[in-house]
Amino acid sequence: MPDDKKLTTRAADFSAWYNEVVLRAELADYSPVRGCMVIRPSGYGIWERMQRALDDMFKATGHKNAYFPLFIPESFLHKEAEHVKGFAPEAAVVTHGGGKKLEEPLVVRPTSETIIYSMYAKWVQSYRDLPILINQWANVVRWEMRTRLFLRTLEFLWQEGHTAHATHDEAQEETRKILGVYRDFMEGWMAMPVVTGLKTDSERFAGALRTYSCEAMMQDNKALQAGTSHNLGQNFAKAFELSFQTETGGQEYAWNTSWGVSTRLVGGLVMTHGDDIGLRVPPLLAPTEVVIVPIYRTDEERSAVLEAAGRIERALGEWERREPNALRVHVDRRDGMKPGAKYYDWELRGVPLRLELGPRDLANQQGVLVRRDTKEKKPVSLGVLGEEVDELLQRIQDDMLIAARDRREANSLRGPITYDRFREVMEGDGGFVYAGWCGSAECEAQIKEETKATIRVLPDEEFRSAEAPRTCLKCGQAATNEALWAKAY
Amino acid sequence: MPDDKKLTTRAADFSAWYNEVVLRAELADYSPVRGCMVIRPSGYGIWERMQRALDDMFKATGHKNAYFPLFIPESFLHKEAEHVKGFAPEAAVVTHGGGKKLEEPLVVRPTSETIIYSMYAKWVQSYRDLPILINQWANVVRWEMRTRLFLRTLEFLWQEGHTAHATHDEAQEETRKILGVYRDFMEGWMAMPVVTGLKTDSERFAGALRTYSCEAMMQDNKALQAGTSHNLGQNFAKAFELSFQTETGGQEYAWNTSWGVSTRLVGGLVMTHGDDIGLRVPPLLAPTEVVIVPIYRTDEERSAVLEAAGRIERALGEWERREPNALRVHVDRRDGMKPGAKYYDWELRGVPLRLELGPRDLANQQGVLVRRDTKEKKPVSLGVLGEEVDELLQRIQDDMLIAARDRREANSLRGPITYDRFREVMEGDGGFVYAGWCGSAECEAQIKEETKATIRVLPDEEFRSAEAPRTCLKCGQAATNEALWAKAY
Repeated sequence: MPDDKKLTTRAADFSAWYNEVVLRAELADYSPVRGCMVIRPSGYGIWERMQRALDDMFKATGHKNAYFPLFIPESFLHKEAEHVKGFAPEAAVVTHGGGKKLEEPLVVRPTSETIIYSMYAKWVQSYRDLPILINQWANVVRWEMRTRLFLRTLEFLWQEGHTAHATHDEAQEETRKILGVYRDFMEGWMAMPVVTGLKTDSERFAGALRTYSCEAMMQDNKALQAGTSHNLGQNFAKAFELSFQTETGGQEYAWNTSWGVSTRLVGGLVMTHGDDIGLRVPPLLAPTEVVIVPIYRTDEERSAVLEAAGRIERALGEWERREPNALRVHVDRRDGMKPGAKYYDWELRGVPLRLELGPRDLANQQGVLVRRDTKEKKPVSLGVLGEEVDELLQRIQDDMLIAARDRREANSLRGPITYDRFREVMEGDGGFVYAGWCGSAECEAQIKEETKATIRVLPDEEFRSAEAPRTCLKCGQAATNEALWAKAY
Repeated sequence: MPDDKKLTTRAADFSAWYNEVVLRAELADYSPVRGCMVIRPSGYGIWERMQRALDDMFKATGHKNAYFPLFIPESFLHKEAEHVKGFAPEAAVVTHGGGKKLEEPLVVRPTSETIIYSMYAKWVQSYRDLPILINQWANVVRWEMRTRLFLRTLEFLWQEGHTAHATHDEAQEETRKILGVYRDFMEGWMAMPVVTGLKTDSERFAGALRTYSCEAMMQDNKALQAGTSHNLGQNFAKAFELSFQTETGGQEYAWNTSWGVSTRLVGGLVMTHGDDIGLRVPPLLAPTEVVIVPIYRTDEERSAVLEAAGRIERALGEWERREPNALRVHVDRRDGMKPGAKYYDWELRGVPLRLELGPRDLANQQGVLVRRDTKEKKPVSLGVLGEEVDELLQRIQDDMLIAARDRREANSLRGPITYDRFREVMEGDGGFVYAGWCGSAECEAQIKEETKATIRVLPDEEFRSAEAPRTCLKCGQAATNEALWAKAY
């Protein structure tokens, strides 16, 4: 795939477009190990900014980080009946260590409920030891057969929160609180709007009482499950004897929650914001917010422009913005590469703002700012560059969320719909369809079989239609819920 | 091990003391998986601060983070002849995935040279693609038989830098630059002085041209290898076909370096600074720098003191210190626990500074600051608390380094020494011994066999004795180098 070839367009082949953007923008690369990817500095830089923002939010809500072992004794997975059904088939198993066969095989963690709650059982004696509010940043492995860069890989990076509480209601509050943190992050930082709500039983996390999810719409109108938060009830507490003495002297099992988001979010960012010339990164997550491209012909012009670019880089870096962090500015000093080629390169990589700077601009004490999202150009006096850049970056961040929300709404269907029409939609452009559901797993399964669409969530109140649907999309019986249907990653 | 039992003293049993401090200060705990530990929030909080400081230093020297797969095809390990000898015996091997036996077993990375340089080979075509300066934060697994919390565990967390350069000299400069970064971090942040220098051939990293190390002295006078930086020459480049077109059109193999520090540093911190009442954490790495302990008898006193403590907590948190980050303050609001028990608890956990605050103090608009390192008490007016705390924390940080350096020097021997005297020293209190070495692996091996002491490094110039030793400690032949001998972890 030579760099000078145009990208496949989203309309022509969304999936090919996605892979090309990820590879050419150097977010990631395939590795020699089937299904495992390499996250390159440009992709990892986005993930690092995601981590920092989420970590700050977790800490602001009282959580601390810790680290639990990569390996889980195989017997642990089997202690919670539903959990083992969900995860055993995807296990990577270590059978040999230090040249010897192990007495008990070790599973590379697919998720850490079992090992973590076995430790909590050791740490918790009384209600005074609760709540435990711990998060871990880690790698996990699930032996997937079909993999996609960032979206579904054998190994991925994530955070998994694991908490223990004295009551069901406290655990439920925590589950919902984190769902809110996820939504705030996805909308506020990623500029990726989401619909939140409850998963149906068939889509629940293996071992959970209730699973909540954030669902985002990608540009091919498919849903991406972007983050989940589980109320685990007492299922794991019972399996691992995680009990405590209550304030009144009784003995009770603790109530647990777990929740996670992963490097999949980087894929979600690409599929939400990318266009036919490449990536678009929301400023808050962009490792570089502004790239300065110097324009020159002669050596004399070159040294004058580069000198000015360096000065501007330093001045912007020290600019006192509303955010506590310094502006992230890069000067593209590469020689032997034309400005046009540099523009193309940085557009592909999605840097939100470009400053073009030539000798004539310098003579006029100005430069030209170009927005990556809208391609809009704006000459700007160098005297007020800090203010302009700061304001533009904020506008870009806001506009990207608005654009993504508008696109989602334009591809969402509400109101009475026949099943035939629903099938047409799913066979055609797809999208989000809000429709009634009778609550039966049979209707859900049949729709999935016939259309590949699934119930993404039973949406939270604010996402529900003004008028509640009366009948089930499939069977026509009375609806017990409004459901959000879509094909999904 | 009940909490009210006194710690074993360092003099009585250093190793038991270490384990007790780590467990009781809740830095870590044993896990159900042999040799794997759980890093608890108090320990992980220290590691997080270490990570942040090192990461900033790596970035300031031009490095970027990336992430490479956990699994390495077994055949990759075998491509570099010395490397496989070093790491194959310690491998954890995944033989099954998704319920099926794998065609080629996968090794859980013990270190990532092989997988990383195989990727660099794909990314590098010309000299223009060099240097590559990448770091990765990751978990690695080495199947150790004897494990110790933090110091030697089956799985550990670390960072591994991997760079590729066009020339030997550039790689050598990088190797030394990072050794300097490590030293700056260990002395500036951990208050742990180190001796830097070159490893002998027998202690070289498997596959390296030259290995440099930072060696610290623990309180039992044993050395801890705290960080290593390797010039890998072209060994891995040749094994993985990592070559590039030179500026003059030729084809050459790249020159690599790799370097790492791990969660072992947390153990080094404990063994450098802990005392018989518990941990002492240098302020720069302390998750909590100041703990406020309210003192009260009546309910009325309680609400007045807690109210004041809250006010002070906020004021200190907003105090404009020299460092860019806010002061990390915690108020111990636990009820039903006497102040003395709280003092004991926070001393065990090593919080650098305590503020005692009672009703009489409040009446006088003062409090009492107590240093954890020296136990020194100082009444201080609340009006100048910010200045006082800020200054005291800096003094503690400085004093801890001075104390550790003094201790090391007091337990270091220089100047002419007979082999008999050397054996006595190593059988007795141990320590660092600077002595001549003829350069032969035989003398080195014999000394190790007879005394358990090894050459930690051939020290860098500034650590060498004013007068160079003339003869080899063991054989009496002419010395080619001054060597630093010690027993080690």
